Amino acid sequence: MAHRRVIAYDSTLRDGAQAQGVSFSVEDKLKVVQRLDQLGIGYIEAGNPGSNPKDLEFFARVGELHLQHAKIIAFGSTRRIGITAAEDKNLQSLLSANTTAVAIFGKSWDYQVTDILRTTLDENLAMIADTIAYLKAQGKEVVFDAEHFYDGYQANADYAMQTLQAAVDAGADVLALCDTNGGTFPNEVFSITQTVVNRFPAVQIGIHCHNDCEMAVANSVAAVQAGAMQVQGTINGIGERCGNANLVSIIPNVQLKLGLACISESQLSGLTAAARFVSEVANVAFNDKAPYVGQDAFAHKGGMHIDAVNKNPKSYEHINPGMVGNERHILVSEVAGRGAILRKLQQIDPSLTKESQAAVNILEQLKALEHEGYQFENAESSFDLLMQKLLGKFKPFFSLKQYHVNIYEPSADGLNSSVTIHISVNGQETSATAQGDGPVNALDKAMRKALQPFYPAINEIKLVDYKVRVLDSNLATAAKVRVLIESTDQQSNWTTIGVSSDIIQASWLALKDAIEYKLSQSRTSP
Amino acid sequence: MAHRRVIAYDSTLRDGAQAQGVSFSVEDKLKVVQRLDQLGIGYIEAGNPGSNPKDLEFFARVGELHLQHAKIIAFGSTRRIGITAAEDKNLQSLLSANTTAVAIFGKSWDYQVTDILRTTLDENLAMIADTIAYLKAQGKEVVFDAEHFYDGYQANADYAMQTLQAAVDAGADVLALCDTNGGTFPNEVFSITQTVVNRFPAVQIGIHCHNDCEMAVANSVAAVQAGAMQVQGTINGIGERCGNANLVSIIPNVQLKLGLACISESQLSGLTAAARFVSEVANVAFNDKAPYVGQDAFAHKGGMHIDAVNKNPKSYEHINPGMVGNERHILVSEVAGRGAILRKLQQIDPSLTKESQAAVNILEQLKALEHEGYQFENAESSFDLLMQKLLGKFKPFFSLKQYHVNIYEPSADGLNSSVTIHISVNGQETSATAQGDGPVNALDKAMRKALQPFYPAINEIKLVDYKVRVLDSNLATAAKVRVLIESTDQQSNWTTIGVSSDIIQASWLALKDAIEYKLSQSRTSP
Repeated sequence: MAHRRVIAYDSTLRDGAQAQGVSFSVEDKLKVVQRLDQLGIGYIEAGNPGSNPKDLEFFARVGELHLQHAKIIAFGSTRRIGITAAEDKNLQSLLSANTTAVAIFGKSWDYQVTDILRTTLDENLAMIADTIAYLKAQGKEVVFDAEHFYDGYQANADYAMQTLQAAVDAGADVLALCDTNGGTFPNEVFSITQTVVNRFPAVQIGIHCHNDCEMAVANSVAAVQAGAMQVQGTINGIGERCGNANLVSIIPNVQLKLGLACISESQLSGLTAAARFVSEVANVAFNDKAPYVGQDAFAHKGGMHIDAVNKNPKSYEHINPGMVGNERHILVSEVAGRGAILRKLQQIDPSLTKESQAAVNILEQLKALEHEGYQFENAESSFDLLMQKLLGKFKPFFSLKQYHVNIYEPSADGLNSSVTIHISVNGQETSATAQGDGPVNALDKAMRKALQPFYPAINEIKLVDYKVRVLDSNLATAAKVRVLIESTDQQSNWTTIGVSSDIIQASWLALKDAIEYKLSQSRTSP
Repeated sequence: MAHRRVIAYDSTLRDGAQAQGVSFSVEDKLKVVQRLDQLGIGYIEAGNPGSNPKDLEFFARVGELHLQHAKIIAFGSTRRIGITAAEDKNLQSLLSANTTAVAIFGKSWDYQVTDILRTTLDENLAMIADTIAYLKAQGKEVVFDAEHFYDGYQANADYAMQTLQAAVDAGADVLALCDTNGGTFPNEVFSITQTVVNRFPAVQIGIHCHNDCEMAVANSVAAVQAGAMQVQGTINGIGERCGNANLVSIIPNVQLKLGLACISESQLSGLTAAARFVSEVANVAFNDKAPYVGQDAFAHKGGMHIDAVNKNPKSYEHINPGMVGNERHILVSEVAGRGAILRKLQQIDPSLTKESQAAVNILEQLKALEHEGYQFENAESSFDLLMQKLLGKFKPFFSLKQYHVNIYEPSADGLNSSVTIHISVNGQETSATAQGDGPVNALDKAMRKALQPFYPAINEIKLVDYKVRVLDSNLATAAKVRVLIESTDQQSNWTTIGVSSDIIQASWLALKDAIEYKLSQSRTSP
C-alpha cells in the first residue's frame, strides 16, 4: 500500500456550485479548471450539461485549454424510468459535452428506489446497467456514483452491492461510494469500503463525502485507508448544506500523513495559493482558520508556544507549513511569502538583499496594507506597481486633483450618474465629464476621456471583470470593501485592487492601477 | 456501553480564548457560563488564574451564579522545576480561584521534557506527582491534561504511560489525553485511547483535540468509541490555529449517532441557539455552513432534493433538524420549483392552490426577477415582502421621490459623500440630508433621518452585514451587482436584497426592503 497513488477528483464546479450563494460564470469555470490542473488534480467534474444548458458553452470552450494533468468530467444521472438510454435527453446532453470521461449517479439505497424514485428495485438495476453500457459503447470512461451508498449498505447491504455489481458488469471503470447525507462515521466508512474494495478488485473505488457530522475529511481518509484510490471533494469544502469533503485538507493528510502519492511536492507547495484563488473566484470569504492553508493555521499566540516553536517548530506544529505553501505567523511575517517578495523586488532592483533597509521597509508597509484589507494574492499587477512606487522607480503618468460624483435617482434615461474628473498630466491640468449607468461606470468613462488625448494606448484596455468583497462586514454600510478589477488589452490580462470604506473610492483605486499598469508596460510617456 | 454517560467539558473561555481575535470580558464570561450551564455542559474550564490575573475577578463572581449542572474548572500547569508545589505562585493563584475542580497540564512527550522544558524525565514525573498530590490534599477534584499525549505515545509509549501512572498514583480523578498539535488520525486516537482505558480502569479518561487536520470532531468521537467519558472542546470550535474540537458537532454526534447520553433532549434542542449566542458574545462570525446548527445545515436547493425531502425528510437529511433546534430551509431559486413557493404563498393566503392564477403569475414574475439577478435563497425577507406585494397584501409605508448623491473626492474630513432624499409618507412629503463615509453609508443615514419621525421603530434596526456580488462580471463597471443586507433588532435577524447595474441603487433597494420588512412585522403605520 506504500506506493499507491491516490487521485484527487474535484467537484467544486459541479457539486460545489450547489452551495448557497455560489455560482460560477463560464469564465470563472475556465480559470478554476486551469488552476486545478496546475495543482495536479486528476479529474475535474465541471458541470451537469443535462440540467444546466449554460454548461454547454463551458464544455465547448474547455477543450481549448490544453490541460496537463486533469481529465474533465461531465456529470449526469442514470436514464429515466421505462425508456432506453439512447432515448434519454439528458444523456444526449451529457454526450454532447464531448468529454473523455463521465460520471453517472444512481440509487443504491433500496428505500430511495421504492419511495423516492418510485420504481422497482429491478428497474433501478436496469437503469444503472443500461446507462453505463450505453456510455461505454460510446467510448467513455465511466465513474459510477453510488448515491447514498453507506446509508443503503446499512439498510440493505445485499441490494446496495447489487447496484455496484450492475455497474461493474456494465463496464464501469470506477465505483464512487457516496455518503450523500453526510451521516456516516469513519469506522463505518472504513469497514464498508474495505468490503467493497475486496469484492471488486478489478475496478477503482472512489469516495464522496459530505460534512454534515463534521467528519467529511476523516471519512475520506478512512476510505483511503481501506483501499479507495479516488477521493472526490471540493476546494475549501464548498458545497451544499455543510459542504463537501475538503480536498485542501485531504490532499496533505493523504500525502504527508499516510505517505501516499497524490500530487507532486511542488504542486503541494502551491496548495495555499490555489485555495485562496478559488475562494476569490467563488467570492466566498476565505476561512482564516482553515487547516493547512488558513492564515491562522500556523499562528502562535501564547508566549510559551512561541518560545517552544522557536526552540523547535515540531513542538507546536504538526507539519512544516512551507510544504503546503503556508507559513508560520509569529512576529512580522503577516505578509505571505517573504522570499517571493524579495524575488519581485530583485526584478526591479537586483542589488537588493534580505537585509537591505529598503526591503525591510517594504515588508513593513505591506504588512500595514494587508492589515487594512489589501490582499495581493489575486492582484499581482497592483503589487508590481506598488513595488515600483515603494522603490522610487515609478514615474507617475497623471495625478488626481478631484473627482465629483453626482447621482439623481430616479433619472429619465437610465444614466443616473455623472462624474467630473480633474487630473494633471505632466503639470498640465485637464478635466472631463461623463454620464454612466451608476457612479463606477461614469467614473471609468470620465477617467478614460480625460487621459485618452495623452495616452491613446488607453483605448486598448477593456475591463473584463469587476468584483467586490465586503470586509469586516459587521460594520454594515461603513464597512471596508475590496474591489478587484481584471483588465485586458487582448494580449494579456491583469488584475488590480482597491480597498476603502467608500466603494467608489475603492473602485477608483483599482481603475487607476489598471490604467497605470498598462501604461507602465507600454511606457509611452508623453 | 449503551448507557454510559459522556460528559461535555467546555474550554471556550480558556483554550478558545487563545484564538486570534477572541477575547472575553468578565461580563462576557459570566454570560457564557450561564448559557453553557443551561445547555447541560458538565465542566466549564473558565480561565487560567496563574497566567491571567483578570481571571481572578471572574472566579470571585462566578460563585454567585447558582449553576444547575456545570462544575467550574480553574486551569493551570504542573509546578515549576526544582521547587515544591506549595512554593509555586501559579498554583497558589489556582487555589485562590476557589473552584471545586481544577485541571493541570503536564508534559507526556519525552522530547518536550528534555528539549523544550529542558529538565530530566524523572523531574517531569515528580512535577506531575507533586502537583496533583498537593491539589488533592487541598480537597480538589483534579483533571490531568496530558499535553501532546498522542505524539508522545507514538514517540515513546513507555514514558507517556509513566506520566499517566504518576498522575493516577498521585490521585488524579481524570486523565485527559491531548492531541495538542492536531496531527493525529482517528484510527490512531482510537487504538491509543483504548490502551489507556484498559490500563487505568479506575479513573475517567478524557479527550482534548485540535483541528489541524480537520479531524478534531472525528478524533473526539473515536476516543469516545474507545471508552473515553469526558470530551473537551469549545463552542463552534473556537480556538488557536485551526481551532479546538467543536462540541456543537460532538454532542449530537455522540448522543444521536452513538446513542450515548450526554445532555437532555430539551437541552439538545437549545444547541443551535446556544451556538449562535456564543458566537455573538465572542464576536466571531457564525458559520452558516456549521454542521447541525448552521443556517444552511438543512437547506435544500436542487429541485430533485426538495421533491425527495417533501416525500420523506430522511432522503436528504441525516437527522431531524428540530432535535438540535435548527430547521429545514427550502431555498427559493429557479431550481426549487413550484412546491416550495406555494408553501410560502399559502402562509400569506391559505386559499391559494397550485392552479390559482395568482400563483402562476407569481412564478412567472419570480422567474423574470431571477433572470435579472435576484436570488432569494439567502434573502427570505425580501421574498416575503415581494409575495405580499404581488398578492396585493402590502400597504406601503413610504415612497421615494428622489435621492441625490454628491461625492467630492478627496474631501477634507473623510465624509466625502452627501445624500439628500425626498420621500412621501401617506401623502406628506419630507426630505433629509446626511453626510457619510461613502455614498451607501450616507444614503443609509439620510433614509433613517427622513423616516424616523414617522416610524420610531427604525431606531431599533441595526445593520449587521453588507455583502456585494458582481453578476455578469465581464460587463465590468456596467455589470449588475447584487447587494445583500442583514439587519437585526436584537430579537431577530433578516436579510434583504437589491439588484441593479448601479451599486448605489442596489444598496437602496436592499436598505428599503430592510426597513419595510421591520415595519411590516411591527405594523405600526402612522
